[in-house]
Amino acid sequence: MSNTLGHTLRITTFGESHGGGLGVVVDGFPAGHPFPHARIAAQLARRRPGQGKLTSPRQEKDAATVLSGVHSQTGVTLGTPIAMVFANKDARPHAYDDLAQLYRPSHADYTYEARYGLREAAGGGRASARETVARVAAGALAEDLLAARHGIEIVAWVDEVAGIAASADVVDSASLTRARVDATAVRCPDEAAAEKMIAAIDAARSDGDTVGGLVRCVARGVPAGWGAPVFGKLTADLAGALMSLPATRAFEIGDGLAATRLRGSEHNDPFYVDAESGAVRTRTNHSGGIQGGISNGETIRLAVAFKPTATIFRPQETVTRDGEPITFQAKGRHDPCVLPRAVPMVEAMVALVLCDHMLRAQIARVEPSG
Amino acid sequence: MSNTLGHTLRITTFGESHGGGLGVVVDGFPAGHPFPHARIAAQLARRRPGQGKLTSPRQEKDAATVLSGVHSQTGVTLGTPIAMVFANKDARPHAYDDLAQLYRPSHADYTYEARYGLREAAGGGRASARETVARVAAGALAEDLLAARHGIEIVAWVDEVAGIAASADVVDSASLTRARVDATAVRCPDEAAAEKMIAAIDAARSDGDTVGGLVRCVARGVPAGWGAPVFGKLTADLAGALMSLPATRAFEIGDGLAATRLRGSEHNDPFYVDAESGAVRTRTNHSGGIQGGISNGETIRLAVAFKPTATIFRPQETVTRDGEPITFQAKGRHDPCVLPRAVPMVEAMVALVLCDHMLRAQIARVEPSG
Amino acid sequence: MSNTLGHTLRITTFGESHGGGLGVVVDGFPAGHPFPHARIAAQLARRRPGQGKLTSPRQEKDAATVLSGVHSQTGVTLGTPIAMVFANKDARPHAYDDLAQLYRPSHADYTYEARYGLREAAGGGRASARETVARVAAGALAEDLLAARHGIEIVAWVDEVAGIAASADVVDSASLTRARVDATAVRCPDEAAAEKMIAAIDAARSDGDTVGGLVRCVARGVPAGWGAPVFGKLTADLAGALMSLPATRAFEIGDGLAATRLRGSEHNDPFYVDAESGAVRTRTNHSGGIQGGISNGETIRLAVAFKPTATIFRPQETVTRDGEPITFQAKGRHDPCVLPRAVPMVEAMVALVLCDHMLRAQIARVEPSG
Amino acid sequence: MSNTLGHTLRITTFGESHGGGLGVVVDGFPAGHPFPHARIAAQLARRRPGQGKLTSPRQEKDAATVLSGVHSQTGVTLGTPIAMVFANKDARPHAYDDLAQLYRPSHADYTYEARYGLREAAGGGRASARETVARVAAGALAEDLLAARHGIEIVAWVDEVAGIAASADVVDSASLTRARVDATAVRCPDEAAAEKMIAAIDAARSDGDTVGGLVRCVARGVPAGWGAPVFGKLTADLAGALMSLPATRAFEIGDGLAATRLRGSEHNDPFYVDAESGAVRTRTNHSGGIQGGISNGETIRLAVAFKPTATIFRPQETVTRDGEPITFQAKGRHDPCVLPRAVPMVEAMVALVLCDHMLRAQIARVEPSG
Repeated sequence: MSNTLGHTLRITTFGESHGGGLGVVVDGFPAGHPFPHARIAAQLARRRPGQGKLTSPRQEKDAATVLSGVHSQTGVTLGTPIAMVFANKDARPHAYDDLAQLYRPSHADYTYEARYGLREAAGGGRASARETVARVAAGALAEDLLAARHGIEIVAWVDEVAGIAASADVVDSASLTRARVDATAVRCPDEAAAEKMIAAIDAARSDGDTVGGLVRCVARGVPAGWGAPVFGKLTADLAGALMSLPATRAFEIGDGLAATRLRGSEHNDPFYVDAESGAVRTRTNHSGGIQGGISNGETIRLAVAFKPTATIFRPQETVTRDGEPITFQAKGRHDPCVLPRAVPMVEAMVALVLCDHMLRAQIARVEPSG
Repeated sequence: MSNTLGHTLRITTFGESHGGGLGVVVDGFPAGHPFPHARIAAQLARRRPGQGKLTSPRQEKDAATVLSGVHSQTGVTLGTPIAMVFANKDARPHAYDDLAQLYRPSHADYTYEARYGLREAAGGGRASARETVARVAAGALAEDLLAARHGIEIVAWVDEVAGIAASADVVDSASLTRARVDATAVRCPDEAAAEKMIAAIDAARSDGDTVGGLVRCVARGVPAGWGAPVFGKLTADLAGALMSLPATRAFEIGDGLAATRLRGSEHNDPFYVDAESGAVRTRTNHSGGIQGGISNGETIRLAVAFKPTATIFRPQETVTRDGEPITFQAKGRHDPCVLPRAVPMVEAMVALVLCDHMLRAQIARVEPSG
Repeated sequence: MSNTLGHTLRITTFGESHGGGLGVVVDGFPAGHPFPHARIAAQLARRRPGQGKLTSPRQEKDAATVLSGVHSQTGVTLGTPIAMVFANKDARPHAYDDLAQLYRPSHADYTYEARYGLREAAGGGRASARETVARVAAGALAEDLLAARHGIEIVAWVDEVAGIAASADVVDSASLTRARVDATAVRCPDEAAAEKMIAAIDAARSDGDTVGGLVRCVARGVPAGWGAPVFGKLTADLAGALMSLPATRAFEIGDGLAATRLRGSEHNDPFYVDAESGAVRTRTNHSGGIQGGISNGETIRLAVAFKPTATIFRPQETVTRDGEPITFQAKGRHDPCVLPRAVPMVEAMVALVLCDHMLRAQIARVEPSG
Repeated sequence: MSNTLGHTLRITTFGESHGGGLGVVVDGFPAGHPFPHARIAAQLARRRPGQGKLTSPRQEKDAATVLSGVHSQTGVTLGTPIAMVFANKDARPHAYDDLAQLYRPSHADYTYEARYGLREAAGGGRASARETVARVAAGALAEDLLAARHGIEIVAWVDEVAGIAASADVVDSASLTRARVDATAVRCPDEAAAEKMIAAIDAARSDGDTVGGLVRCVARGVPAGWGAPVFGKLTADLAGALMSLPATRAFEIGDGLAATRLRGSEHNDPFYVDAESGAVRTRTNHSGGIQGGISNGETIRLAVAFKPTATIFRPQETVTRDGEPITFQAKGRHDPCVLPRAVPMVEAMVALVLCDHMLRAQIARVEPSG
């Protein structure tokens, strides 16, 4: 549905960029889990603007106000809906008055009007990336349960910016941590590549321009058996959730596009039994941890491509609401590259999908699988 | 949900590869539309195996038996659920007895067992690509309504096989027809490339091996205003629907991954007003017809990557259900390359998503938009 | 949704009274449960017409053809959708040709046309009570799982017909069995009342008229903790499911309307701890086993009122599709009283709601409750 | 789903009685409708406690804070989710500390613990009737659109309290207004009956006791064609929505239980064509405006029964969480009769269901019905 994601764990988000506030209602979260204030704050801090010269200088502390769903005395979840609200403290709606009369290229101005007959011009309204604050908070809640119950770790990083790619030899996704990711301003764990990426972003900014790139993500520790064929395949739900993020252009699972250039004999992942654990494992992981839409116990690997930010600071041809040609020159605060802030967003969407499927897997067979 | 796709137009599919049959229930299809028997038959014929040497020799006529939802006298839709059933006429369940005791590499054998505690071994059960027969029939129904109401045309084609790509200069997606696509056995409208693709497929088959590739698809004539932010973005729903197809590895919208290497000034699509129609248009279409998750009236462009077929005819290392190592040698009937048959599947999923959103767009504002 | 019921266990039904057939797809049913052919057949036999002089003489064997979802070798459920289809063997569509031109009073003829612009006239189309065959089959499947896992027993009976009520002193709902219910043709376990009911039905039939009544139902053995506030309260889901049955007019839980005439001190159910089991119990059960929308471990008690059958064999004033007044005289095969056949329908709807909530309760808290 | 109601117009509510606040997110509301602040405030005022001696003295101004979904400059709806939040200003959580250790009879204390393993004791947590504030606000929004588009009027009233019934001869449901309903403190438009009801409530209060009763409701002006067979019948959705209100015990449509005592010839509603309007009408309206689950254009009539309030001020037998018997004596602020405040709650639920179905009816056939 439009503003609800998930089946068994469901989030419903609301809010425009400038206005009373944004928020999320999480329904279906099990009772009895300690509410993870710190984890939520940490992920919100990684998402918020104003983190450095690479991101928008807009200042939003983005603290979650928890309205419901948490036990007043013990701080554990109640099983009832958890509502979190984020006030729009640094809103400057009048900064956008001029924009209300024209359609910014490759923004959602025109399409929102085509759909709804009107739009909230301030800050892009609901189409603003600020909407993702609600997702990141909900995602942090979800991943806390995944971590508590299965020790699952979800780590995303910037793997490519403006065509500059991290080296797969340098980035060890089996051991990568968020701390390691955050060690560079661009959230790329290959420091040499990171330097070049930062330079490319700076160069684009100097030109009043913007760049895009690729975020990769791994989820380690997901048990075999999650994912619900045929339309609720893990692949499908991950793709749908991630491609709902603003500015996304492509989604890859496992080897992704590269898989199309392998033969079956190269791409297939042979099974073996791990001598120590007795678990069925695969020797390679071209599949990215998912086969037939269901997790196989290997690390889930995916990638999401983001286009260059649509707001550039160069004159652009466009039209007014009245259909008159006009040259548009953007002002205000914007990221020259959305990638570093996209990292916690990607983690959040992955966490929400996995947590939903964790619950669904619990009831997939007569004998509860715990 | 697991076996239901869509919100307002909803399909629910069922069935295993070998057994009583497969089927689909289409709910929410408007009353009063002539039931398109011919279009459904045509798309099923394009999907079915046994079309030529490139595809599996399994013979299934795949005629849809319509059980409900169509007026007995006029043949128009009733507004009630439309059920279509497909018998499994050429089923040979015992051909699969041996497979029941081991896990075929990169198939869903192991993961289905991990999830459900058991699996239907015959023909891959529900994980078989045969399941898509139900989707293709429902998709043809959906696209018939899109065509009748808005003149929408959805055309997919094989754009790359085994690394051999069609030339963008040769494939004119603005005028491409299904007849033109079907002119080559591999469903690639670039004949020169098609020849090479066919040779690559033949070579793989000779080696007992398989290849993957890329299907591209355009939807022409979609009005501006379809798509429901934030989780029901057209991008998200298309990605989720297409990545629910078997063997998919990646999804791209518009310029896809290539967009990450453009600067904003290159990627943004400038607006102008078409002198003749008065419509707001974009001079380029890097966005692929969708901005902010909502259609902008330009052609929707997307791509879906498929891995090489998992069934190869070479010995493979794997394990039995008891955890014993075993060498597996496949027998039976399988496609060395799934791409030609994937073309109508991709079209079907696109049609289903668009038709769902056509209905949702009708009620997105107080003034019905027709 | 229109033709789908339930959240975690979901059924989707399809089919018109006369045509290719009716059916149901059950999604979300756990894997590994032996498919209960006998129980399904038994409940279908109780629902089918032609059981005796009290019901329609239409002959339909109503055997379920299982198309999918059951393991071909072991007969247990696969976890994939279970599709059951019922052919319309005794269909006589042309018997209804005259009806297509007028609106039968208190049938759905006019309202279906108002909604859909057309209708399937044969046998009432989708509005026919024949549609319930699909529900009864699915309900029997659901109750089999409830019985296997928790020993739950669901027993409904006819408690009132034409104002003639069974005596609460005679009907012991704590020990009542289906065999006892079926001991009278009218399915009322108070034999003295049953005789009078049968006489009332016969008298109505002789007059070309019809009568209504009340079905009561108990569900014994439901554990405490099922039901999902606030819109998924057990009360709400039971009410919605039961009032979706044809001809229903009222729903009561626990004391129902009678509760409105008690004071709180009379209606409240005092808690105590059962010495033997240690369970928290209530001394009375005015609440009908549900408090705050969640089961409390006591027997669930509810009632459903059915109106007199709309098809009477007396001249009735109505209008044609062209708006001309006409006198309508029904012909054909119809029940003078729907109550006896409604008994398995009520049981089915209760079973479906409970089974859905059983699954939902399993994941309501961090510690799985088994 | 648990905390979401509706399919196309969907509300998701959250919040406990004492805590950060309650709220509702309305998704699917069409763009372009002037946000009805006044109507919402009016209905909230009718729902709030502290209106007089008949209701709880708890003081909550209950003003809706609108966080999103409304255009900042024109005040019309944006088509995006509308979030309304209600702070818990008069919360006194510590007044409930004692209650945390025992189970109040016929409250949800025990069942919430059975389900979730814990509960929020303050004010009943999510089981409190305070939760309905969110429904009433959303319902007022929905009914404003129904009124604007179709002139629909929804009027509920208290028809019976403690066995004292209003006279059907006095209450003219065809012309009844909310002002007329509000003319008596008990919201019964039969003044003579109202006096007796008030006396009965006072008597119960003097005894430390409580009473229940019946709310009736009409919806005038609903066009023919709303309601979606088979599980989305208007009857089913109304029953489910209304029985999700706290303290409900029964639901009736049309003649309700009384229909069971009529013969078909008495209960059937003959059709005729209205000479003036040309509309198909029924001479009687035993069906309550719905046939086959779809509206027929006549006034929708329904009734909802409420049990006596569970909180009484007399000693009651119960048990502690540790299973010890204890005598419980309630303190605090409670309504001796919930009926007067239930009137706007019933109206809200009816409005939400009808508005959902208005949107669904718009797309039920190929030719949009406007």
